[in-house]
This record gives sequence, structure tokens and C-alpha cells, in this order.
Amino acid sequence: MATIKQVAAAAGVSVATVSRYFNAPGQLSEQARDKVRQAVEQLGYYPSSLGRSLRTSQTKKILVILPTISNPFYSRVLTGMEEEAEKNGYSILTCATGGDLLSEENKLKMLYDRFVDGAVFFSTSLSRRQFDRLAVEYPVVQCCEYLEGSVAGAVTIDNEQAAYEAVEYLLRLGHTRVAFVNSDNRFESSILREKGYRRALTEHGIPVREEYIRRGTYGFRNGEESFRHFASLPEPPTAVFAVADSIAIGVVHAALERGLPVGKGFSVIGFDDTSLARMYRPGITSVAQPRKELGEQAVRLLLKRFQSPQKSGELIFLPHRLVIRESTEG
Amino acid sequence: MATIKQVAAAAGVSVATVSRYFNAPGQLSEQARDKVRQAVEQLGYYPSSLGRSLRTSQTKKILVILPTISNPFYSRVLTGMEEEAEKNGYSILTCATGGDLLSEENKLKMLYDRFVDGAVFFSTSLSRRQFDRLAVEYPVVQCCEYLEGSVAGAVTIDNEQAAYEAVEYLLRLGHTRVAFVNSDNRFESSILREKGYRRALTEHGIPVREEYIRRGTYGFRNGEESFRHFASLPEPPTAVFAVADSIAIGVVHAALERGLPVGKGFSVIGFDDTSLARMYRPGITSVAQPRKELGEQAVRLLLKRFQSPQKSGELIFLPHRLVIRESTEG
Repeated sequence: MATIKQVAAAAGVSVATVSRYFNAPGQLSEQARDKVRQAVEQLGYYPSSLGRSLRTSQTKKILVILPTISNPFYSRVLTGMEEEAEKNGYSILTCATGGDLLSEENKLKMLYDRFVDGAVFFSTSLSRRQFDRLAVEYPVVQCCEYLEGSVAGAVTIDNEQAAYEAVEYLLRLGHTRVAFVNSDNRFESSILREKGYRRALTEHGIPVREEYIRRGTYGFRNGEESFRHFASLPEPPTAVFAVADSIAIGVVHAALERGLPVGKGFSVIGFDDTSLARMYRPGITSVAQPRKELGEQAVRLLLKRFQSPQKSGELIFLPHRLVIRESTEG
Repeated sequence: MATIKQVAAAAGVSVATVSRYFNAPGQLSEQARDKVRQAVEQLGYYPSSLGRSLRTSQTKKILVILPTISNPFYSRVLTGMEEEAEKNGYSILTCATGGDLLSEENKLKMLYDRFVDGAVFFSTSLSRRQFDRLAVEYPVVQCCEYLEGSVAGAVTIDNEQAAYEAVEYLLRLGHTRVAFVNSDNRFESSILREKGYRRALTEHGIPVREEYIRRGTYGFRNGEESFRHFASLPEPPTAVFAVADSIAIGVVHAALERGLPVGKGFSVIGFDDTSLARMYRPGITSVAQPRKELGEQAVRLLLKRFQSPQKSGELIFLPHRLVIRESTEG
């Protein structure tokens, strides 16, 4: 394990600057932060070894690190986590990073300082190498997202297969022009779902058209704008598969405003089966993830890691299913 | 200030039991917890004085205590809190209590242990007396909800007036049979909104009919069930005011299934102007709260309390407004 002096030397800064990088990163210039971050990453340094022995008692707290609290998908997963944690005498602390690496590193101090016993990540802005190093030293697991082959365990659905099946369902309905609205590929799940989309088309002998693929946020507006883009093409798609219900609803809303008969010739599938999908008129066909169970099992996996920290990355896949509603014909 | 021994004597339990009440309440029987809780409340005991001196450094962390993470209303308020906190070098830790007093008390240990610098509450399960005692000793503020006259400050909208104006809008459209779907009155805001509903009717010379008032959860299903109840009355209401968009959408959904022309003779108003209200077809008329600003200002108020702890309960009202959409005629 590298020492703080070695990190300072490698970064060409003082030891105090390295210390501030971990304790008050906002006080450093961006340049200084970059230098220290690179040295920390190269040398595999973590300040944990310092404070570690000071706090050995259990805190009975679990940190949950989210990119944002505003995605309704997370709420039921969090409920599952909270219930499972509570049952075992633990409390869940939730923290949003805004997908920002510096913010995430800042939050991880709670883990280094033994402020919490372990952490559950959804997506992470850490590099694969950083995340693995973290997982070797601390009890951490991933939920819904995972870095393949990571030493941290994960509980997730098979995102590639789920997307494959959704697209195949549209093909079976007779659609050959199937578009795809993805998020911006910051997430592993987005990459896997796009793989599934492409595989389904290819296996059915349908060429993938890049103009049918859109990327953006998980929002309603992304759906509306994507629909307008698709409608402007010489050959507009007749079906859309979106990676979130909010996107799917944006597509449906824009289509209905245009007078397109959603569910009767124009089909839309969303993802996550949030309450939105059920509440909307027409109801939105959607890929359901067992959200509460994902949360419960992620906490259970973390509790197992507390018992036997050596255990390497267990990967648990939970079943998904396609919930058919009126936004697809059939 | 009472001592732990006095609490133990008053509760008729051992000092160890009182200590466990604060440190591992799950290990006590419900009976023992009740006894200790009563003694703690009677004597005004808080364990803070013990650990207090151990930790005097700032943690730069703010605890946010929510009843549940699953209400989409909170997400934008939390975003406001996070942005304002981040700007000032603070992190937000979010904790859900499920509206459970024991869970809330357990979470408050983070405040007593100086694990966080202060706390923002939405609603609280603490009694008025407990909450005031807490607010005297620790920096705490309320957001969106408030206990009237509390020494803790609060940032909120004028819930009574907002409800009054929504109902008055329906009356101006010519409705005389206006129903009200409330939450279950666990929240101050629910009590105030019901006051506003009743006042609007009374001031316009319309008698309040108890069969037009429903209470339940903040959910879609509450809206659906309420509509069915209203439709079964000899004189069904022609307009519904609901305290959440999800409830309003449940009402609209059930009405449309029945063939009722929503926005043309049958009007519905929701609350919070969540993205649901905009995304739905028809769009839902809704009372908008400045959600992000509520979060920002609550954090700003807390930061002010860090500076001058003696300052007593500042109450800040932010403006609300009615956003008119297709679910009301006009």
C-alpha cells in the first residue's frame, strides 16, 4: 500500500494538498485535484488505513449512493433496501452524486471514516479499477447496475435479455421499423439494453438503422423530442422501445398529439413498469424489474459481505417480465 | 436537564435499558420501549449531553428526514437542498422513517452523536414538545410542513390559502358540488388544506357535506376509490380537489373509464404540479409549489441557524400558484 508521501511526490504536490484532496477537495484548484487523483489512482492509495483502526465498532448504517433521487425508478428499490435493512437493525442513508466523480469521492469518505459499515451503489462514476480497489477494502455491492466481473457483488436483472425480449415482442407483432430511445450510455444498463436491441433486430434479419437510435436523459422531453425526430424521417418507425417509462410516455404523448393511433399500428414499450405506466391512458407496455426485491437482495448481499469479506463478486440476476398494456397492439 | 439515572428510575428499568433504548432499541421489548419513551418525554432527557463534547468539529453533513422516499413531490425539493448544500460545501444525507416514531428517534441519534451538523425535517412523528426541545438544542428546520409557533424555523407555502384558491377556482367555474380528497391528516399540510377547502365553501355560502370528503394515502388508488365512492352518492360531486397529483390522476382515470367528460362538466384539480400533471392526458390543473426553492431555502435557513443558534423560529412562506390545464374547463 502506498503512503501519503509517495502520493504527494508522484503528484508533485505537498502532503497537505493530498490530505486536503480527501478532506476538503473544494479548496483545491481543479488542476491540483486532477494531479492528486491521477497519483492516487496510479499508486492505489486510499486514506482508509489511517482512520481505520480508530473506529472498529459497527455503525449499523448503510450508505446508498445514487446518481439522482429524481428518477421514480429508484423509490421502490430504496423501499426494499430500507425494509430489509430495518429488519436487520440497520439504517439506510441515501446520498445523490449527480453523476459527479468528485461528489462521489467526497461521499465515499463516509466509508473510509467508518461512518457507515458498507455501501450500495447504483451506477458509479469511479473507474473500473478504482471501484475494484474499493470493493477489495470495503463491503460494497451494486444494485441494478454492475461492472462486469467486478469483485463487488451485484443484484440486477439481465438487461440485455430484457431488451432483446421487448424488441422481439414488437417484431412478433409485425413491426419491422423499430426505433430505440436510450439514455446517454453513462450506465452499464444502457449499453446492455442497446446490445439486446441490436441483437434482436440482427437475429431477425432486420438491419440496424442508426437514425432509429436516440440517446438522451431519462425524461419525458427526451421521448417527445425523439418522437418528433422519428416522425421527420423519410421512413418513420412504427414502433419504439424506450429504456424508461417517462421516455415512453413522452413518445406516446407526442404521437397522440399528432393523431397517431398508439396501440393500433404505432406501438410503444417502456421500461421499469413504474406507476406511471399503469396510470397513463393508454396504459404503457413496460419491462418490469422486481424493484423492491432488487433492493432487498442488494442489502442482503451486503450483509453477507459483512460476515465474510473475502467472498468475491457474487452476481445475482433476478427475473424481469414484459407487462402488456394498451400501448402495444395484441 | 435530567440524568440517565433519573430516567431509569422514572421508567422503572435499569440504566442499561435506557442506554439500549437510544443505542439498540430493537433489543428492547415494545413494553420496555414505551416505558422509557414516556420517562424520556416526561423528564425532557436527551442523551446528547454525553457524546456532545466528544465531537465538536463540523461534519459538513446535513440530515434530511423524510416520511418516505416514494412520493415524487420530494424529489425536486431534495434536488434544491442538494444544490444549495453542495454550493456551501455540505452534503445531504437522506433518511426515510416510514412515519414511524421509533425509526425517527433512531435516526436522530445521528444528530445527538454529532454525526451531522443539523437536520431538515419534512413532517415529524415527534410530539410538539419533543420537537421543540430538539430545536432548542440542535439546529433543525422544517420544510414544506411546520408545527405552528415552533422554535424551529420552517420554509413552506401557505397551504390553507392555496387550497382555498383552488376550491374558489372551481366555484367560479360554476361548480357547487365540490369534493375533496385529502391524505390521512398525519400531516400539518393536510389539516391546513382541509381548513382552506372548508373556508372556501363556507364563505361562498355552500354547506360542507362530509360525504364529499375522503381521506387516504397519497396514491393513485386512493383517487380511483374516491371517485367510485363519489359516483355512488345520490348527488355526485361535479368537481374534485385532491391534495396530490397522483390522487387527482386516479380520479381522472376512473372518471374517464366511466365515460365522464373530464374538463367538460367534471373538473379535477391536483396538488404539487409534479411532472405527472403535465405528462397526463388530459393535463391536470394543479397547485404548484416552488419545490426546488423550498429545498434551497430550507438549507439556507439551516445554515443561518449554524451561525446564530439562538435565533428563534423564522417562518418563511413561498408563493404558490394554480397551473391551469385541461382537467378543468375554462
